[in-house]
Amino acid sequence: MAQRVLIIGGVAGGMSAATRLRRLDERAEIVVFERGGHVSFANCGLPYYLGGVIDERDSLLLQNPTSLGRRFGLDVRVNTEVVSIDAADKTVLVRDLQTGAEVTEHYDNLVLSPGAAPRLPDIEGAERLHTLRDIADVDRIMAALDDESDSPIVRSVAVLGAGFIGVEAAENLLLRGRAVTVIQRGPQVLSSLDVEMAAPVAERMRAAGITLRLGVHATAIDELSVSLSDGSVVAADLVLAATGVTPDTALARAAGLTIGRSGGIWVDEFQRTSDPSIYAVGDAAEKTDQITGEGAVVSLAGLANRHGRLAADAIAGRARPAKPALGTVIVGFDGLTIAQTGWSERALVAQGRAVRVIHTHPSNHAGYYPGAEALSLKLLIDPATDAILGAQAVGGSGVDKRIDVIATAMSAGISASELADLELAYAPQYGSAKDPVNMLGYIAGNQAAGADPTIQWHELEREVAAGALLLDVRGAGQLTEGLIPGAVHIPVEELRAREATLPPGPLIVHCRVGQSAHTAQRLLTQLGRDVRNLDGGYLTWRAATAYSSDASAAKRHTESASERA
Amino acid sequence: MAQRVLIIGGVAGGMSAATRLRRLDERAEIVVFERGGHVSFANCGLPYYLGGVIDERDSLLLQNPTSLGRRFGLDVRVNTEVVSIDAADKTVLVRDLQTGAEVTEHYDNLVLSPGAAPRLPDIEGAERLHTLRDIADVDRIMAALDDESDSPIVRSVAVLGAGFIGVEAAENLLLRGRAVTVIQRGPQVLSSLDVEMAAPVAERMRAAGITLRLGVHATAIDELSVSLSDGSVVAADLVLAATGVTPDTALARAAGLTIGRSGGIWVDEFQRTSDPSIYAVGDAAEKTDQITGEGAVVSLAGLANRHGRLAADAIAGRARPAKPALGTVIVGFDGLTIAQTGWSERALVAQGRAVRVIHTHPSNHAGYYPGAEALSLKLLIDPATDAILGAQAVGGSGVDKRIDVIATAMSAGISASELADLELAYAPQYGSAKDPVNMLGYIAGNQAAGADPTIQWHELEREVAAGALLLDVRGAGQLTEGLIPGAVHIPVEELRAREATLPPGPLIVHCRVGQSAHTAQRLLTQLGRDVRNLDGGYLTWRAATAYSSDASAAKRHTESASERA
Repeated sequence: MAQRVLIIGGVAGGMSAATRLRRLDERAEIVVFERGGHVSFANCGLPYYLGGVIDERDSLLLQNPTSLGRRFGLDVRVNTEVVSIDAADKTVLVRDLQTGAEVTEHYDNLVLSPGAAPRLPDIEGAERLHTLRDIADVDRIMAALDDESDSPIVRSVAVLGAGFIGVEAAENLLLRGRAVTVIQRGPQVLSSLDVEMAAPVAERMRAAGITLRLGVHATAIDELSVSLSDGSVVAADLVLAATGVTPDTALARAAGLTIGRSGGIWVDEFQRTSDPSIYAVGDAAEKTDQITGEGAVVSLAGLANRHGRLAADAIAGRARPAKPALGTVIVGFDGLTIAQTGWSERALVAQGRAVRVIHTHPSNHAGYYPGAEALSLKLLIDPATDAILGAQAVGGSGVDKRIDVIATAMSAGISASELADLELAYAPQYGSAKDPVNMLGYIAGNQAAGADPTIQWHELEREVAAGALLLDVRGAGQLTEGLIPGAVHIPVEELRAREATLPPGPLIVHCRVGQSAHTAQRLLTQLGRDVRNLDGGYLTWRAATAYSSDASAAKRHTESASERA
Repeated sequence: MAQRVLIIGGVAGGMSAATRLRRLDERAEIVVFERGGHVSFANCGLPYYLGGVIDERDSLLLQNPTSLGRRFGLDVRVNTEVVSIDAADKTVLVRDLQTGAEVTEHYDNLVLSPGAAPRLPDIEGAERLHTLRDIADVDRIMAALDDESDSPIVRSVAVLGAGFIGVEAAENLLLRGRAVTVIQRGPQVLSSLDVEMAAPVAERMRAAGITLRLGVHATAIDELSVSLSDGSVVAADLVLAATGVTPDTALARAAGLTIGRSGGIWVDEFQRTSDPSIYAVGDAAEKTDQITGEGAVVSLAGLANRHGRLAADAIAGRARPAKPALGTVIVGFDGLTIAQTGWSERALVAQGRAVRVIHTHPSNHAGYYPGAEALSLKLLIDPATDAILGAQAVGGSGVDKRIDVIATAMSAGISASELADLELAYAPQYGSAKDPVNMLGYIAGNQAAGADPTIQWHELEREVAAGALLLDVRGAGQLTEGLIPGAVHIPVEELRAREATLPPGPLIVHCRVGQSAHTAQRLLTQLGRDVRNLDGGYLTWRAATAYSSDASAAKRHTESASERA
């Protein structure tokens, strides 16, 4: 007899499960319940519709119940909420949100894909907050912006939270011509990144005209303003909360399903919950973190789709295990691309993990070919095993490519040093004969060999105070970019001749990005000197220390993160 | 005592060896001999200087003997040819090409990086051919083009060879305003690609105004024309030969070093030749092919740099083995990007290897985000092991990223099905929640499971003749793109209702790209039908069959290739 599969949630994970299951089982009865008015909408496109980058609302609606019924034979019911699960009876209680009518539906297998709910601050006026999770949210914001009117009343917008969604929303509200203030509780934007990698993003946001308020949080949402924790008030005709999400586990908890320590619904490697007839996927389900092997909440569309498909495979008797999650993320802001995979240094340090760090500042392609854009890369390595623990990249074109290559290497267990051997496509408009990813591998190999110690930007002050001499080996023409206080300047080309003039004692060499300094380090080390290279050179030091004037960057660096992403 | 290392060739491989060795050994005496007038020039940039994309000749000169002397303490001698090696005596005979003076130089270790020589046709007037390998070549061409003159005499140019360099040269000579004819002995451009993947490149070249003459070769180079094998004559004031290169092994042969079966200088995994004090790197040295494990000639700047570095590591006592070569290549033409890694289908078939083929036609990023560009991807898989044997991509933005990810997967031994699990960076302007690389993995997994047989474009005619019914399941709106003769049209949405009207017997389903047809295949298979999916759909079929009208595409496909790349 044909089995009956009910699916709760009709967006990424749920709809992937439904369509995959139909392809595997033409006879199954598949019913999808969606609380909202739309299924299969482009949730990652919502901010861009807000900004007019995507100008047709219909572009966001990839499928509808009718099209899914015709193509996949799915019974898709929108505005329909599953209010409870009776796991013993294998039934769910379903409410039609338009009529209020309730019916009980039997299942052979059930897939939970309810997603995540916005995490809203518990403050006065919180009911005035907008969120940006679905079509109804975006319709409400567009109505409030009222751009059809001759005198729209929303002139200023505040965005709570400078995470990935907050940055996208801020960019798009700016594109809509609003005055935008972004309010971030922590000391930096994009808190999943390390501070020196987030610095260029904050700089770009400010340059674009966004007012950034870091290190404060909203204490009240008033009609036309937001009150902040430092006593100040920000004018805001509309306030958007982008302060993160929480797995929607209410149904699962009520049904007695096991909840993971991370707060997501516990699932095994086949997306099966603690009840063998119930699967969970998407933002509501716990993932397994590749670095720790432990449960984690990772809200990503790619994983939701993938796990939805795996749930269908398991239901159809073709079970295939999920791979652990890296948490690969990317966001654009005003021509800048920011991407990350795996863990940040801060998160690793907070977990007590030893970590080796590499910063580089290559061009996206051969410098002699016009249009080369600068990237900043950071690689995090387990010093005991040479395993890659994470990577971050900020810059113009080519950021996504490098993070995707590193994420692939991490999935495959390629070590940091082995990045040197990857054979990547090279012509001068696409890369370099030694691609930036290869260069990370070369540096990692040098470090693994132990002969080329580096120090990090946040260790510099301490080491100089302890007596190390800071030696700037840049060419004279590069000095106009700025100086690190206290450095002695000898260009690398003059080092062989002038080495004898240097006082005895430990040296720290630096250049613009770390490469000439490495040449200097090799030279001086072989002359018997104790030499460390300032990792990432002047550019990393400047990004980290110029970030803001209201706190010590080194202090911020050592603050442990309360959350990973 | 400090060792003395002589390096023959001062471009990619040789100079990488020299600078790396200096970083490892401050005391070594390192002498670089370069036959030409320049070292460390940007050879991959030469075509773009021709076209004015790179407008300053100085941009091509990355280093010079003085800068290398100052920074790295290298003794770099240009216009200096090594005329013989006495391996027993560990000396070389060196000639100053400007004075003719000869001296003998002793070495402890010797690195050969002489590169490759253009392979010129042995025809009348061959001495009139230009080549494009170094600065002197490009200077000669620029002088001949004589763009400073009011009436430049070179109005038409013929390029012999439509390989990667030929395509780049043709684009740039077109940019210089010349009438360009490309003459290619084989039946397609970019013969390292399979015919259906090269087709869009030929189409774009013709659309840009290039005259393509395929399947013919030059029989004589006259003053103002080229005579071709079919008796026709092409007007050409200047003729550029881009007909491939041959490893420059003359010195090595004369010194008694072992030459590999591929024609390159044999080296072990540490770049050491059959003489333990002599290393070889770059285009002159044989590589190990990753797919076959055998020797191969692969002329790529990336490998030259890498192997130069490894030779230095070995000389400095830090030997590290080279990884096998994939042959990852990329070329741009007029906004189109073409990239490849590993082997082509044609080369695999010629070697008698079983191969499973997947074609897809995804967008580079989410279709709902503006500016999505089409890609065509081809994946080649070992059907016995699911190993990836090669990949090809043609399209707009994002081609380089996908080939780099697949090349990384191949290096790491990730199987074709495992591409589904790669966690790549997704936001709508960068990719898709199911990235094109993931989709290749999903399709590979379906094929490995055996339930979803496909047929290739070149098998279609035969199968239809044998009685299979071709069923076009595209939406009615897609039919205007073109039809495959003989197909019956039933949109996938109507298949459940109309399946009973189909005659019995085997079915071949097709849609635009293969995805809807897969849904149709799953449906019909479960209804008990024998169904195969036309891989890559209408788009692959059209690319393959519309390529040219003067030969059967299927016949061209089965022609075995005389060379791999």
